[in-house]
Amino acid sequence: MVTTLVPHEPIGVLSDAWRECVGTGRFNLALRSDYRDSLRLAQDEIGFRYIRGHGLLSDDIGIHRPYDVAGFRGTRYSFTYADQVTDLYLDLGIKPFLELGFMPPGLASGDQTVFWWKGNVTPPSDYAEWNKLIQALLRHLIDRYGIDEVLTWPIEVWNEPNLTHFWKDADQAEYFRLYESSVIAIKEIDDRLQVGGPAISPGADDWWLPFAEFVTDRDLPADFLSFHAYTTGPSQHVPFGVYQTLRHPSDLLDQFARPAEILKDTRLAGLPLHVTEFNTSYRPDNPVHDTAYNAAALAPVLARGGDLVRSFAYWTFCDVFEEENIPTAIFHGGFGMIAHRQIKKPTFHVYAFMARMGRQILAQGDDHLVTRHADGRIAVLAWQPTGGTDDPEEAAEHRLSLSIPTAGESVYVHRSDVDEHRGNAFTAWQQMGRPASPSRRQLDALREAAEAVRSHHAAPVRDGRVQLDISLERHGVALLELDSVVDETPAWLDDRRILGRGL
Amino acid sequence: MVTTLVPHEPIGVLSDAWRECVGTGRFNLALRSDYRDSLRLAQDEIGFRYIRGHGLLSDDIGIHRPYDVAGFRGTRYSFTYADQVTDLYLDLGIKPFLELGFMPPGLASGDQTVFWWKGNVTPPSDYAEWNKLIQALLRHLIDRYGIDEVLTWPIEVWNEPNLTHFWKDADQAEYFRLYESSVIAIKEIDDRLQVGGPAISPGADDWWLPFAEFVTDRDLPADFLSFHAYTTGPSQHVPFGVYQTLRHPSDLLDQFARPAEILKDTRLAGLPLHVTEFNTSYRPDNPVHDTAYNAAALAPVLARGGDLVRSFAYWTFCDVFEEENIPTAIFHGGFGMIAHRQIKKPTFHVYAFMARMGRQILAQGDDHLVTRHADGRIAVLAWQPTGGTDDPEEAAEHRLSLSIPTAGESVYVHRSDVDEHRGNAFTAWQQMGRPASPSRRQLDALREAAEAVRSHHAAPVRDGRVQLDISLERHGVALLELDSVVDETPAWLDDRRILGRGL
Amino acid sequence: MVTTLVPHEPIGVLSDAWRECVGTGRFNLALRSDYRDSLRLAQDEIGFRYIRGHGLLSDDIGIHRPYDVAGFRGTRYSFTYADQVTDLYLDLGIKPFLELGFMPPGLASGDQTVFWWKGNVTPPSDYAEWNKLIQALLRHLIDRYGIDEVLTWPIEVWNEPNLTHFWKDADQAEYFRLYESSVIAIKEIDDRLQVGGPAISPGADDWWLPFAEFVTDRDLPADFLSFHAYTTGPSQHVPFGVYQTLRHPSDLLDQFARPAEILKDTRLAGLPLHVTEFNTSYRPDNPVHDTAYNAAALAPVLARGGDLVRSFAYWTFCDVFEEENIPTAIFHGGFGMIAHRQIKKPTFHVYAFMARMGRQILAQGDDHLVTRHADGRIAVLAWQPTGGTDDPEEAAEHRLSLSIPTAGESVYVHRSDVDEHRGNAFTAWQQMGRPASPSRRQLDALREAAEAVRSHHAAPVRDGRVQLDISLERHGVALLELDSVVDETPAWLDDRRILGRGL
Amino acid sequence: MVTTLVPHEPIGVLSDAWRECVGTGRFNLALRSDYRDSLRLAQDEIGFRYIRGHGLLSDDIGIHRPYDVAGFRGTRYSFTYADQVTDLYLDLGIKPFLELGFMPPGLASGDQTVFWWKGNVTPPSDYAEWNKLIQALLRHLIDRYGIDEVLTWPIEVWNEPNLTHFWKDADQAEYFRLYESSVIAIKEIDDRLQVGGPAISPGADDWWLPFAEFVTDRDLPADFLSFHAYTTGPSQHVPFGVYQTLRHPSDLLDQFARPAEILKDTRLAGLPLHVTEFNTSYRPDNPVHDTAYNAAALAPVLARGGDLVRSFAYWTFCDVFEEENIPTAIFHGGFGMIAHRQIKKPTFHVYAFMARMGRQILAQGDDHLVTRHADGRIAVLAWQPTGGTDDPEEAAEHRLSLSIPTAGESVYVHRSDVDEHRGNAFTAWQQMGRPASPSRRQLDALREAAEAVRSHHAAPVRDGRVQLDISLERHGVALLELDSVVDETPAWLDDRRILGRGL
Repeated sequence: MVTTLVPHEPIGVLSDAWRECVGTGRFNLALRSDYRDSLRLAQDEIGFRYIRGHGLLSDDIGIHRPYDVAGFRGTRYSFTYADQVTDLYLDLGIKPFLELGFMPPGLASGDQTVFWWKGNVTPPSDYAEWNKLIQALLRHLIDRYGIDEVLTWPIEVWNEPNLTHFWKDADQAEYFRLYESSVIAIKEIDDRLQVGGPAISPGADDWWLPFAEFVTDRDLPADFLSFHAYTTGPSQHVPFGVYQTLRHPSDLLDQFARPAEILKDTRLAGLPLHVTEFNTSYRPDNPVHDTAYNAAALAPVLARGGDLVRSFAYWTFCDVFEEENIPTAIFHGGFGMIAHRQIKKPTFHVYAFMARMGRQILAQGDDHLVTRHADGRIAVLAWQPTGGTDDPEEAAEHRLSLSIPTAGESVYVHRSDVDEHRGNAFTAWQQMGRPASPSRRQLDALREAAEAVRSHHAAPVRDGRVQLDISLERHGVALLELDSVVDETPAWLDDRRILGRGL
Repeated sequence: MVTTLVPHEPIGVLSDAWRECVGTGRFNLALRSDYRDSLRLAQDEIGFRYIRGHGLLSDDIGIHRPYDVAGFRGTRYSFTYADQVTDLYLDLGIKPFLELGFMPPGLASGDQTVFWWKGNVTPPSDYAEWNKLIQALLRHLIDRYGIDEVLTWPIEVWNEPNLTHFWKDADQAEYFRLYESSVIAIKEIDDRLQVGGPAISPGADDWWLPFAEFVTDRDLPADFLSFHAYTTGPSQHVPFGVYQTLRHPSDLLDQFARPAEILKDTRLAGLPLHVTEFNTSYRPDNPVHDTAYNAAALAPVLARGGDLVRSFAYWTFCDVFEEENIPTAIFHGGFGMIAHRQIKKPTFHVYAFMARMGRQILAQGDDHLVTRHADGRIAVLAWQPTGGTDDPEEAAEHRLSLSIPTAGESVYVHRSDVDEHRGNAFTAWQQMGRPASPSRRQLDALREAAEAVRSHHAAPVRDGRVQLDISLERHGVALLELDSVVDETPAWLDDRRILGRGL
Repeated sequence: MVTTLVPHEPIGVLSDAWRECVGTGRFNLALRSDYRDSLRLAQDEIGFRYIRGHGLLSDDIGIHRPYDVAGFRGTRYSFTYADQVTDLYLDLGIKPFLELGFMPPGLASGDQTVFWWKGNVTPPSDYAEWNKLIQALLRHLIDRYGIDEVLTWPIEVWNEPNLTHFWKDADQAEYFRLYESSVIAIKEIDDRLQVGGPAISPGADDWWLPFAEFVTDRDLPADFLSFHAYTTGPSQHVPFGVYQTLRHPSDLLDQFARPAEILKDTRLAGLPLHVTEFNTSYRPDNPVHDTAYNAAALAPVLARGGDLVRSFAYWTFCDVFEEENIPTAIFHGGFGMIAHRQIKKPTFHVYAFMARMGRQILAQGDDHLVTRHADGRIAVLAWQPTGGTDDPEEAAEHRLSLSIPTAGESVYVHRSDVDEHRGNAFTAWQQMGRPASPSRRQLDALREAAEAVRSHHAAPVRDGRVQLDISLERHGVALLELDSVVDETPAWLDDRRILGRGL
Repeated sequence: MVTTLVPHEPIGVLSDAWRECVGTGRFNLALRSDYRDSLRLAQDEIGFRYIRGHGLLSDDIGIHRPYDVAGFRGTRYSFTYADQVTDLYLDLGIKPFLELGFMPPGLASGDQTVFWWKGNVTPPSDYAEWNKLIQALLRHLIDRYGIDEVLTWPIEVWNEPNLTHFWKDADQAEYFRLYESSVIAIKEIDDRLQVGGPAISPGADDWWLPFAEFVTDRDLPADFLSFHAYTTGPSQHVPFGVYQTLRHPSDLLDQFARPAEILKDTRLAGLPLHVTEFNTSYRPDNPVHDTAYNAAALAPVLARGGDLVRSFAYWTFCDVFEEENIPTAIFHGGFGMIAHRQIKKPTFHVYAFMARMGRQILAQGDDHLVTRHADGRIAVLAWQPTGGTDDPEEAAEHRLSLSIPTAGESVYVHRSDVDEHRGNAFTAWQQMGRPASPSRRQLDALREAAEAVRSHHAAPVRDGRVQLDISLERHGVALLELDSVVDETPAWLDDRRILGRGL
């Protein structure tokens, strides 16, 4: 094993793209207390800046409310739930990344729906009414939260219109019409509001140039571009779940990079790029999401993704999510970093570890990221590289060695570990016999098993460097935080005397 | 005005029937954080013992889960949400009053639904499957919470089967079949489990004797009887709301009394009677629920209802409720004692006042209830009598006078008031211009306006009695708590010296 | 009664001097949970910026720790409690206004102490040691909280050195020596640190010019000047308390104004002036502090004080205070705005009312202050003027009338009242018989009685003005908040139909 | 290594004596927020029933308050702080074990004090006044908390009267006089109140028979007997600390056993015995208290102590304690299970582990305790035996092997570890360089390092037994909780498919 010699001088800056945004189950679910508890947990330990999900305009938020009663006829715009959710977000220090969709039933041109919760995915029956709805929404948000605040909220037109189940017939021309109509309506309110699209799914690279051409031809604004990235193959169904093949983690980074490449000669070149959804699997019922494997696979993506895009939003922060019906077991392969009942998954910890990294990058490799804080402290993220389905066997142990420049005579090393057994409630749950609905006592045990394991030691500094020989267990991710020791031990202390030893 | 001479000796005991049970929006809504916040508020200031609502078996709780995938076929019983809600209830010190309903889609014989949230109201397509579902549910609850706990939870078969929109064709024979099937299935699990019905709506007195006859003929168990009471006339619709006529409050007490009368010569005579829903209006969009009128009208019902039934459950504790779609304004005539955003309505305070009354009844009249606590303290509830639509004009002031036996030389009187202006956020909201979606600052003001107004004075005791001359504003309800004063004033204190006065 | 015609244009800006700083019981008391609970209350409803109290260097904080054991000899500087308190302050959003005092026993030149808790008030036995102590303290604070933060903390040298019980022999020359020694030691650490004095009590105006002369002659820095203001006469003792005469409230404003006048031709002219303590009475056992009288007397001082000084700190925010031993009754005339057990006094509410005032002053008079918020809302503070001992009789009612410019057709008026009976737990406690140690139930009643009483009405706007005819009860202070009404009432609503009335 | 064959049938019942009572710093310290936070932590994870400390009658609680002012003369009994502390205790679910002491200054016959905080240890100057004080106290407590509650609070007369620094001259006759006077005064209030003594320190066995004789001769009540147990040698002082020799843990059990032996033929035989203080060292500044060694040494004492006495109270639950002045460093050898800033020490975890043990004892040995819960679950406590100063070297590893009867096919083993490195903030702090006053970030790291480390695995059941081969690191204590696995794994799950492996 070769020791990586970490340089004194930073080689770059670690952007916040990895925590700029996070995905969520539909807007209505934010009314739930388990959602609130989980989001508070995420904000306490990670601190995302934006949150994005579907369903703002769906009927279970109830904004668009036509009436025709007792001779009174019209449409009422109602914000009972929209306000409640937005208030919550802001209270928890997170801002909405607005997604315009799906179609309110009273404005839909058809009855095609997506998901168990039946989001209507048909175009508006009346674009003038659609525009009025969007304008009413924005006026209300500006009234309530102030224009300065709302100007910071990106507005994304629809979700994955390139897929027939998200947009009737995946009709590109109709989507462009929706985009045009929406962007004009929004800019009428305030032309500083940030609008973007086309929010396409993986595998739709053929939408980029037509989109660029459309906005160029029609001279339409576009303040940012958005798309999604997932890296699994087709679903192999079992009851209440799927299995899928998985590509190498670098595939995600490749997906992040592609739009800039495709668009480099268009008017859209240089616009902020938001990966408004990403994960390993695009299914909310693939058990890979519950594993340390998922955490290890994503570590290099978090470390590098910010070089390529403005944000990449993990889909989703918690398992409060109902696209495939209500989960029938506490671990069910949900997207969340946090399972039901506020049980942290390994992926949660990788995010929490990232939140404790410094801004300056000192070194970066296939299995490590070394950073320095403004006050000089070093933080190291180390992980076992994973290979996806084509290279499926990770060793039982992964080792790496770093030589890190530091001040002082010794260093306090504070280590946090997640792997197949540590910080891993999923494994504990398997060992418990997979109780679908754990008892309260089992939930307590799972919460204990879910915590990252902490350890610590003092390492000597020699010639201005500390040597870290790091051993990881399978699918392990570790955070090592180094503090230069200022020894305050008074002269009179002698630990050998504590137990009467020796003297 | 004549002074009522309150006797020394109690004339009765105030039962807890008024807080034995409370109604709630559907089971799924208990997942919400505003629901939890509101229920905590109710439990802190009132302290209900049981809670009852619809939808335990509906698809948004997701218990009954048939599957047929990849060669695997069967039904999974899943308690992901059922446990979460039940855990919450017990954590807040309230027990579920189980209502079996509505029909899970996978077990329904038709697709007729009720409410905006689409509860299926058709009989089971297969009674054997229904029985398996109920037994799976009860076995799970007993596993999780213990048989001793579950034995205390009443189990009510269905809801208002006498109405066509709650039970297909209001088919009495089919309901009896459901009752028979359910009760036998439940008693197989443990014959101490308490089962009852028929949960009929007002105006269905013709169901009682057939039900008595049926359970007698078939020798079926019935541990309690349940029914509902409301006292308004037909709905006069406007957009997002209704108006209705209202009967005199005594009409509710008459409804409470009727089943015992009808059944007095049957085998069902003497069974515990539960009014599992009551309110003035049966509509979740009648503004009367938001008013002090509602509070004043219910005061005599709370004071007397316990003489007639084992429990009478106010329908419902809070406005988190979606039977008629999502409310379009914060005050919308919802059933709740607590509006959205945890704003207390006048009716909440009447319940909170009742929770501060003593157990011994010293006097009871058309406008007052006088009680004594175990430690001798007196608590008085006073209200302005209301007359319903036929006698609609209450005076701007109502006065009453009580002479109350008490110890000591003086009494500290601590008074809490609710009326058209005090403890009345609805009036404040009207004065604000009825903002549908109040700003945060307006919400704060509404919460301040919603608090009961406290005042206090010292009253002299003469000949062992204190004279209370109580004046109430329109639709006022007041709580007066009397403490015999033990004067601890030291000899050296002279309040005239505080501001340099006089000396 | 003449109506005051409030102008459209602001006549001034309301400074935050009234909440720039607040007084506290000694530093050690900040370790207490009741202190923390009370401070949180104050910060939630008022929001002070700085807090100042005695005892940072006293032995119950334990910073200066000489040792001579087993052959080891020296002085250890220990921050166990100092950090705990400072952490708390910052967590609650308040910064320390550092007062250097009293003398640690190991550094004292004598054993004279002040207060029940025995603060040593003798000069240092060794000025070099004193300097080392102060430098150790500042270095530690800078290490822990950062220099940018500590630069914002004023540092005041000692407390009331002009009084023999606070500074041995009230020795002016010795104080100047202490000042010189301290200021030089502090500026050695960082010359941007803000140091000031002389922290003199009322009645010591003869110290100003000598102090100016001294710092000028010796060319010493002085970043601010500090002094105290109280307005009562000598103590007339009774057991566990005193009575005192009281001067007119304007006397406090006169005291605020005097140092600037005296110093106007010296080098100290123009320095920031901090009234680091003020109140009506300077005694922690004068019942006036518990009364509405105190609140009414201070209202004009809060309204005007910011014209004269940079800050004036109410002494103190809560009754957790032990200068005259442990209070023997819950109401005992303590300085606090908040009594023991988090019971708000009337004075608390005046501060809370001030915190809801706008920045622009529209009108100001003997009994009112009218302000406008940035968003156009009007807030009015009204009070009954008080006269002190020489003019002791306030009327049972005080009335004033304001004509206020406003937009819209009507105004929602949200009113909060404190007077002899409302928002007045002291009166309730008197009526209860003055229980020294109230039961939990009595504490609950006192907390209810302590809340300001809220009321509300809609007022019509005529010719762009709303007329407020305000009636106050004796010693009343009221806050009136006006919101222009935007009427959202839908066309179909008709409140006459709510109870079936009329139609 | 021999495997211990754990039997099916219980061999005894684990009493709650280990958590019946816990020690605390002086009564006044309970006013502090860090005290409250730490006690809440202890109650959440351990759940003590009683709490005992010094200083109830000392002047910093302020009960006894003579006055002589303005012609008014007398004694006021004041409960301002006494109530505040007692309310807190009851709110946290813990009851006071009342210790009568020390002497209020106004009632003291001399000025000898003990501790930095100066508790007066002289006899009353007037026994009649002493009796009045005690009676006033008890009457007040009964008024406030009810006689039924106060009857459950033991009342102990004074503390360690056999030591000259706790009782002037260690005058036995004077103590007996105090006992007699107190017990008679108390029983006058209600003869069911439980009184006891003599609260002697270790090494005072010669007090037992004279005490027995005295109460027998004078026919005095004695409801329980109390004494203390410590097991260290004399102090070897260094600045701000001591070192001491330590005896074998069995010495503590011997001390627990001795009084019953001595008194077996007296009238006092069979009375409940309370060890109202015990620990390894009797010094609040011996670093052994911060170590895993302390935890390992006490494990066998907790396991066995209940066989000998009714309660044994760890002295003390937290480091908020000031007998030897204010600690100068966060780790300073304090008695507490919880260090300042709510940092758990290893000993805390042993108590928390004990709180998760079952009631039935299945096996008990030098390094283990095996228990079963009512629901059949097994909990094992394992520890490395320690030898004290005479046998000071524990091995780096300790192993034991248990064969435990259990149901099912496999067992989920949930393990919690504390040793020299795990669950050991003291070691982390040493490695950090012993920062006396850790930064907030260091405090966070210490709290993470302080948590017990959790791990888990599934163990097969063979022939109705599970084999546990337990390895402990130096000074390790481990809790192993075993749940019989009910395997709910559905037929369709195949974990090999999660990552695309194998298939």
